[in-house]
Order: sequence, then C-alpha cells, then structure tokens
Amino acid sequence: MDLNLHAIENVPIIKPGDDIADIICDLLSDIQDDDIFVIASTIISKAENNFFKLDGITAGPEAIRISKLNGKDPRFVQVVLDESLEVFIESPFMLVRTTRGNVCVNAGIDGSNVGDSVYITLPKNPEKAAKEIGLKIFEKTGKKVSIIVSDTNGRAFKVGQTNAAIGVYGISPIRDWVGSQDLFGKVLEASKQAIVDEIACAANISMGEGSYGYPIIRVRGLSLYTDEKVSINDLFRPEKDDIIIEGLRLLRGIED
Amino acid sequence: MDLNLHAIENVPIIKPGDDIADIICDLLSDIQDDDIFVIASTIISKAENNFFKLDGITAGPEAIRISKLNGKDPRFVQVVLDESLEVFIESPFMLVRTTRGNVCVNAGIDGSNVGDSVYITLPKNPEKAAKEIGLKIFEKTGKKVSIIVSDTNGRAFKVGQTNAAIGVYGISPIRDWVGSQDLFGKVLEASKQAIVDEIACAANISMGEGSYGYPIIRVRGLSLYTDEKVSINDLFRPEKDDIIIEGLRLLRGIED
Repeated sequence: MDLNLHAIENVPIIKPGDDIADIICDLLSDIQDDDIFVIASTIISKAENNFFKLDGITAGPEAIRISKLNGKDPRFVQVVLDESLEVFIESPFMLVRTTRGNVCVNAGIDGSNVGDSVYITLPKNPEKAAKEIGLKIFEKTGKKVSIIVSDTNGRAFKVGQTNAAIGVYGISPIRDWVGSQDLFGKVLEASKQAIVDEIACAANISMGEGSYGYPIIRVRGLSLYTDEKVSINDLFRPEKDDIIIEGLRLLRGIED
Repeated sequence: MDLNLHAIENVPIIKPGDDIADIICDLLSDIQDDDIFVIASTIISKAENNFFKLDGITAGPEAIRISKLNGKDPRFVQVVLDESLEVFIESPFMLVRTTRGNVCVNAGIDGSNVGDSVYITLPKNPEKAAKEIGLKIFEKTGKKVSIIVSDTNGRAFKVGQTNAAIGVYGISPIRDWVGSQDLFGKVLEASKQAIVDEIACAANISMGEGSYGYPIIRVRGLSLYTDEKVSINDLFRPEKDDIIIEGLRLLRGIED
C-alpha cells in the first residue's frame, strides 16, 4: 500500500478574493476521486482578506492587563482576545481556545508571509471554507475529493510545531478502530486514530515554511472520502473530560 | 516535490530475539540512501521480549492507592510506576513521563497484539534500538538510512491518537526554520518544525491498527539523513518551561 504526497507547484501568492478551488483545478489536470487536498490556513485567510494592522486597533483594559504580563503589544493582545473563547495561559505566551473551537497559541494569528507590520487571523470558518472548496472542485471536475484546512501548532510536553486540521470536508476526522480485532483476536478498546491530523502532519513535511512554502499538498492513495456530514468538532476534547484544562484554570486562578 | 510512503508487506509476527534490520533487508531489495524507516515501537518491544503478565507482579502501597482512584488492576499500576519518572495525572488514566523521557498514558504499556492477558512495555531504549537498526542496515547494504521508532499517543485538548517519535537515528528531530526568510523577506522567529513527529504521523496513516497492521513504513523523497549525533531529547520540553506540567502538578497537590 503506497501513499503519495504531492506538493502543488506554482501556487501564486494568494490575494483577497482569490478562489482556491479554481487555482487547484487550474494547476492540476488529473484530479481523481478520493484525492485529499491539505490547504494551509494562511492562504484561505489571505483569500478572505483577514489581514489587519495594529494601527487600527484599540486595546481594552483586559488586553492592557495581559500585555503587561507577556510583553506583547496590547493591541495584538486585543485581537487575540477578540478571536478567543477562553484564555488558558496568559504569559509568556497566550494559549487560547479560538472562536473556531481549536486550542492554540495567539489564536493562530500569524505575522509571517503577509508583509511588514501586517498580521493575519485564522480563516473565519475553516470548515465552511473546506466545504466550499471541496464542492467547487466537484462542480468543476466531477471528482469527489476531501479537503483538510491545516494550521501549525505547538504541543503540550514537547518543543517544536506540527500541523493540525482545523477544518475538514469529505473525510471523517477520526478513524475508529474500536471493536476491530488485534492480531490475536482480542477486541481493541481504545483506538481512535486522529487521521486528519496525521494527514495534515504528513502534508506539512512537504509544505515547508517561509519562502520555501508549498501551501497546497495533494495526498493520494487513501479511500477515505465520505458524503456524510463531518465535523472538526469531533476532534475537540469536551472540556468536562479535559484534565489539562482543569489544571491550567487552577493555575490561572492562583496567579490572578 | 513528491513524497512516497510504502507500507512493507509480509512483515512476520515478531518474536523475542528477532532482528528488525535483517527483516527489513530481507523484505526490501531496493533500499536507498536517505530512505527513512518508521518502525512501530511494539515490534521492537517484542524483539526485546518486553512481555509481562500481571501474575508475576506484586503491587506496592503507592500502586494500591492509585488503583483505588482509577480502577485499574494495582499490579498494572505498579508496572506503570516502575516505567515512570513522574506521574502527572493518576485518574481516570495515568499520564506519566516514562523513564525514556516521553510523556504518555500508562507509560505506553499496551495490551493489544500481544496475546491474552499479556502486556508489553515500550522498548527499553528506543533511541539505542533505532541506532542499532540503522547501523545494521548500513552494514548490510551500504545505504545511509534514517530510523524513527514511533508510538501512538493521545494529545492535550483533542480526542484521538496520533503517532509520535520516541527514538531517532540519522535524522534531526527538529527542522529549524528560525532565521530563514518568509515570502516578503521577513525573518522567521519561531518556526521549529517537529519533523520526526510529522513523519511518524505520516507513517501511521498506512500502519493501521490491530490485525490490519503494517508495523514498518518506508518514507522516500526527503534528504534528511545526517551523520551527526541526534537525540530525541531535543523534542522534550524542559520542565522549567512547561506551564501545562505546572498546572497538572498544582492539580495533583490539591487533589492529594
């Protein structure tokens, strides 16, 4: 069983209003059923015109308070707060749950690959964006493809970043092995593979960073397309089960 | 730029004393420089004969105390403690730092694919195992290959498991983009890609679980081989910088 990851060449620098599905269809002549496209969230954000400059932002009292702890510009902190449902860590970096449901540093706001003094927020609704791109590719080619919108994240306990899915279309986020049997016939009890995060990681190997970037990767060799409704929310741990968040809340309560 | 992941067919069920490098060389006739082999830790544990049964274990007072909280067999808890440097969460599952340095649930002890009432611990020294396999393949083929020993882990904030590297040879765990320039010439400040974890995730897409398992994946298309000394420890966040561990310790202190 072979899996192929192909970094799409000649993707232009994306501008507000650009149509990612059109770009994919223009650059690839051989799109097939079950192809999976992993798309770096940055280019969707650019197409959505999610750029901002600090000049236009007024920081409120909470942003000013946090900025004194972490040394960031209070206007930057204000935008992180605007993009977040809850702040778990305030300093030395801000770890938040974004309004999209994912947990990440600085609400995923990025200052690279967007020009001087300019920042960009995550896609407004990564899952909606994924669906629109998948449906448009189907409309143009008749091929049923899956879409994963990805963002680079830090991790607990480990240094370095890996890619993660923040929006999906046409692929279930979890591959559930529970109930299948092992080599000795024993039923597996706890195997839920976060397959879309693993595919996002695989794509990131070829994506690179900075000026070497390939923002769209085609993954071929899997048969994971589904017509069923899928939701990235299936990947987010319910807070009532989340002991790490419990610990971080406790830490915040004590530090405040 | 294309990346190929090839699941090696016909890997036998590994028995104590088996030589993984011999098996790889026997099954593949075209090993090339820069090939990366991702090897599921379970098969290394089997070759090392790391099996145990609960029958032979005597639980101490700490194991008995924790077993009353999490409902596990106290003898199982005893083995988890024996394999761990620190316990961060005791219940409903045990999150520990293993004696190898990685943080995971139940010290990575697995009860699947090893037969009835039998468990298996992680490889004694995954990095040493990786090095031995890489050197033996070089000795037999003259090809400079990289080795990643992987294990499946849960994650903070998210449900589902992904693969992660727990030992490496011939590949640096981090791909450091700091200092390189973005599309607009701005210097990147914080991009350390945990490339070996991403390659482990990529491999896991094809590994599968249970009776469908392919425990060895060949990754081809990258030029990441290095003769320099590498260490998986570069991936483990220093505890003094780890706010999540601080929160979990606080939570334990209050619960105790």
